[in-house]
Amino acid sequence: MNNSSLDPLFKPSSIVVIGASERKGSVGRAIMENLLGIDSERKFHGKIYAVNIKGGTVFGLKCYRSVLEIDDKIDLAVIAIPAPSVPKVLDECGAKGVKGAIVISAGFSEVGEEGRKLEEELLKVARKWGIRVIGPNCLGIYSPVSNLDTIFNPSDRQGKPELGNIAFLSQSGALGAAFLDYCAKENLGLSYFVSYGNAADVDESDLLLYLSEDPHTKVICMYLEGVKNGRKFVRVASEVSLKKPIIIFKSGKTRYGEKAAKSHTGALSGNAKIFEAVAKKCGIILVDTIEELFEVAKAFSKIDLPMGKEIAIVTNGGGAGVIAADAVEEYGLVLKEFPENIKAALRKILPPHASVENPVDILGDAPVERYEKVIRVVLDAKPDAIIVIALLQSPAIDHLKFVRILTSIKMETNIPLLAVLPGGSLVLEISKQLEKHNIPVYSTPEKAVKVLMYMNKYATWQREKKKRILVHPIARK
Amino acid sequence: MNNSSLDPLFKPSSIVVIGASERKGSVGRAIMENLLGIDSERKFHGKIYAVNIKGGTVFGLKCYRSVLEIDDKIDLAVIAIPAPSVPKVLDECGAKGVKGAIVISAGFSEVGEEGRKLEEELLKVARKWGIRVIGPNCLGIYSPVSNLDTIFNPSDRQGKPELGNIAFLSQSGALGAAFLDYCAKENLGLSYFVSYGNAADVDESDLLLYLSEDPHTKVICMYLEGVKNGRKFVRVASEVSLKKPIIIFKSGKTRYGEKAAKSHTGALSGNAKIFEAVAKKCGIILVDTIEELFEVAKAFSKIDLPMGKEIAIVTNGGGAGVIAADAVEEYGLVLKEFPENIKAALRKILPPHASVENPVDILGDAPVERYEKVIRVVLDAKPDAIIVIALLQSPAIDHLKFVRILTSIKMETNIPLLAVLPGGSLVLEISKQLEKHNIPVYSTPEKAVKVLMYMNKYATWQREKKKRILVHPIARK
Repeated sequence: MNNSSLDPLFKPSSIVVIGASERKGSVGRAIMENLLGIDSERKFHGKIYAVNIKGGTVFGLKCYRSVLEIDDKIDLAVIAIPAPSVPKVLDECGAKGVKGAIVISAGFSEVGEEGRKLEEELLKVARKWGIRVIGPNCLGIYSPVSNLDTIFNPSDRQGKPELGNIAFLSQSGALGAAFLDYCAKENLGLSYFVSYGNAADVDESDLLLYLSEDPHTKVICMYLEGVKNGRKFVRVASEVSLKKPIIIFKSGKTRYGEKAAKSHTGALSGNAKIFEAVAKKCGIILVDTIEELFEVAKAFSKIDLPMGKEIAIVTNGGGAGVIAADAVEEYGLVLKEFPENIKAALRKILPPHASVENPVDILGDAPVERYEKVIRVVLDAKPDAIIVIALLQSPAIDHLKFVRILTSIKMETNIPLLAVLPGGSLVLEISKQLEKHNIPVYSTPEKAVKVLMYMNKYATWQREKKKRILVHPIARK
Repeated sequence: MNNSSLDPLFKPSSIVVIGASERKGSVGRAIMENLLGIDSERKFHGKIYAVNIKGGTVFGLKCYRSVLEIDDKIDLAVIAIPAPSVPKVLDECGAKGVKGAIVISAGFSEVGEEGRKLEEELLKVARKWGIRVIGPNCLGIYSPVSNLDTIFNPSDRQGKPELGNIAFLSQSGALGAAFLDYCAKENLGLSYFVSYGNAADVDESDLLLYLSEDPHTKVICMYLEGVKNGRKFVRVASEVSLKKPIIIFKSGKTRYGEKAAKSHTGALSGNAKIFEAVAKKCGIILVDTIEELFEVAKAFSKIDLPMGKEIAIVTNGGGAGVIAADAVEEYGLVLKEFPENIKAALRKILPPHASVENPVDILGDAPVERYEKVIRVVLDAKPDAIIVIALLQSPAIDHLKFVRILTSIKMETNIPLLAVLPGGSLVLEISKQLEKHNIPVYSTPEKAVKVLMYMNKYATWQREKKKRILVHPIARK
């Protein structure tokens, strides 16, 4: 099966919800509400059909008793009915010519021997008709691209992010949903969120490969407990990493975690050291915490890759500069050394007792104009990335002007620009505005520097890999 | 000088603001506004006097030309005038009998040789009259205890937290203010915030000692670049740690950081390894990031010390349980092993395919009642701490009931209880409610586990230290 076989899952023109319902609290109702855009502005772009053995209507739509009764072509079936009925219903979908199915229903391999058999049966039916299946035991897909949305958590407690260029794959449904909610709060735009559950058919490697060719997706991030097929994963990840960054948080790293993972998704999480080695070989960005997954994805989503390790830092708070300098060294980066002409130019701009070394401390009384002048001079030194730290509590800073000046500098330079804005509620407002203009903002200096460390690691891997491919094109195979 | 000499700084009955003004954007105006409670509900509890050489009135108060003209006893002078005039004005304060001064003014040792001389002069005057001085070059004190507040950042951009039991000392003013703002957003209550600037007189050790006896303060956290007097610091910190936890984020740990710190506060940050050894010896909790400072302080502020390393975890999301289990092992803690009777009791409560091992995965369809029953059984196993993870996006959870049940369990047990609630905006609301009832909430499992690691380290230090003191009482000296 080739990669375009996933098109019906990601780009359906018509959907049928099997198990559609108006019953309060039911999964079938929640999915219908999502697709019809009842609680939101997000109506699915294609045609929607409802199936329920009880017949009747659902939200004014005719409810067919079987998919076979529908007199139209159907691309994707979303199945939310008790597990034992799934294989039979999937068989009908096959007969109808449906080529994609998201099986929400739980009660398969995750519940033991009997469920395992049911999952095998499901898979047999899928193979018979050439249906690609996501799930079972999953939340499915959320995508602002077409407003495909099978995430059935109630809308009053499940935030859903706007359109963006980050794809997020989660082996865990519940945790995935929580971080989908987090992305909404953080204004982190997504192209696709996929909770793929037991991965009976479509697995993490298939999804990676598909998204590597998706024009809406620039970065792929994953929560992973274990991979289904190690060899396939290594092959796919190495290929994909050449095109797009893959950022992974992997759990099940320790003895305790492995045991817990086994009882959770049944995943053999495998030796942590081996996965680390695989990640290194494949150019995967393996992050330390689940939060970093999104902090790193944000940077990849908004800025270019740094061309090297030399970082410049501009700050109105000396303390924050010290923390940033520590982080630069701790994470193996380098503080750009300024040549004499740059220092001379800084000396002209700055008050006499300010430091013209990197980090440049422009002092607590610095107005936005001083920021602007200093940043421009520092960019002339051609650092590989610049971190602008601003303690916006200072009375000297005009916040609107700060946003204006930083965004206009961002437009003029190719040098990756990150901002660090420690603080409270007001700061969040300013951060939002900067991030709209593709300046990633972090709440502490350490976070911004660590993100650059990850980016630099990836850039280095990519450069070296591409060089090798140029020299020995066969090595790519 | 003994410790009560700091009383006029922390518990003044009357304050004079020298440099008081109505001029917009001036420091003297901001401080007057704070003390008079003009932009907030927080009026200073004692008497307020204004001094400005220009005379006139400030916000309806008579403005004296010199502190000597005031016909009342003054405890504390807040000085915000140009640096060169400070020694003379401080001398008048001495003559008036003022025993405490917060010198906001910058332009002392931080600006070079001339400033250093001025600072020496200031110190000489202070010693002559026995005035204890905080600063110069600082933001001073913010405290909801008496609404003493010399933080002069405009109120529209500087959040200030409510009353709580955490004291926060910052060597950096600007960074301190940013994290004061952060505390306000995070609803982290403070007893005192002190930005102590150049520490010409009162240094970090004096402040530690004073706060160790302050009844409002349960936990002390510090941002530190370097200590003024190493020997004194070791002696004081060892004493204080026996009574209250001291949590420190120290910057200037690397070659880069040290250089930046030197140009910032002039602090000799010293060798990182040495400071680590000092911290270990003194029972100081040395955290890895500035954010951890507050995450750890929150736990100390709200829960008892764990008596050991055995952690229990209850979760409605398997993935989050796996992450927590990994963290427990990575941070050197232990998953409590449940005896057979506990497992049997859990088996009775849980669906057949749920795990009765620790972490207990009560499954995604768990209602609050299942949480309640499971937590009670798990507490019967007497773990040293329990982490309750809840993915509140689940449709099965009644949020109000969740808060009610968790808070009532909290009331009934001495076992430290922490919550982990990953997600977005709604989750923040629930977190606030739980934290009001002294259940510290974290956004990821790793954070909660790491906090317990720090607490356990401190508890172990304290137990061993106290044992040694009992055996060799002289060792305490």
